[in-house]
Amino acid sequence: MQHEQKIVLNPIGYVRTVAVGDKVKDKALISQIVVRDELIDGLSGIFDYSHLFVLFYLNQITDDQRRTLQVHPRGRMDLPLTGVFAVRTMLRPNPIGLTVVELVSVEGNILTVRGLDAFDGTPVLDVKPYDRWDIVENLKVPSWWLKLQEDKKKL
Amino acid sequence: MQHEQKIVLNPIGYVRTVAVGDKVKDKALISQIVVRDELIDGLSGIFDYSHLFVLFYLNQITDDQRRTLQVHPRGRMDLPLTGVFAVRTMLRPNPIGLTVVELVSVEGNILTVRGLDAFDGTPVLDVKPYDRWDIVENLKVPSWWLKLQEDKKKL
Repeated sequence: MQHEQKIVLNPIGYVRTVAVGDKVKDKALISQIVVRDELIDGLSGIFDYSHLFVLFYLNQITDDQRRTLQVHPRGRMDLPLTGVFAVRTMLRPNPIGLTVVELVSVEGNILTVRGLDAFDGTPVLDVKPYDRWDIVENLKVPSWWLKLQEDKKKL
Repeated sequence: MQHEQKIVLNPIGYVRTVAVGDKVKDKALISQIVVRDELIDGLSGIFDYSHLFVLFYLNQITDDQRRTLQVHPRGRMDLPLTGVFAVRTMLRPNPIGLTVVELVSVEGNILTVRGLDAFDGTPVLDVKPYDRWDIVENLKVPSWWLKLQEDKKKL
């Protein structure tokens, strides 16, 4: 039955970083994506792009955390309880992370990138080029999102 | 062993559309994402965003197609043979689609969206809000990408 379908994926590679804990959230952080040797041909032409989407598997999320459906953004109780599909939290039914990174260099099967908020050893599911269709104009975000950014500036 | 890790996911819902064939690529196309009933709480607050990322599973891709590592973009032999990680082709080791859509309306467990290039019945893996951090300035794309856009304008 269609609704019982299970989807099985294999990592295309792994994240390599020296950053631990909250330091992985630093948008200036340089990390590497080590792509499996046998997939190296899939990288040809990638350096013609400045930015990539990285899809990765949040392998530290437990089954219990996958059942979470609402959170306070960034754990802040002053912000409204919000559905997990309306927040970029790691807690979600399919714990896939999605981050836009800057591509710094490519050497063999190793992509060096800036701004990847993933821990060392995180399985990477896919890498896709970011193109002009991915730029949104006239974007709307919630007021709590803007408040978070304002609060950051005050720090 | 880490490198043998298999990742198992369950769809959070399905795509519903009347479009068939190449018509799903129309960026004005309105489709629906029918989210599983038990996940409806995960949608709260989502309408505060204008745009979403939709991650979906390209379930028509065969195992053979998953082994493809290079393609000519859009099947055009005049464009350079390019690695699958440098193109948004459906042929990739983990056939996950990623599309930015405009959120038109939300009713119960049904998201109505504009611009989702997925076939009817496609399993949806995740929905994430698009926020200001996802907008890239000073973007670089390959010259073949720009040529494709120019050729479209001529049609």
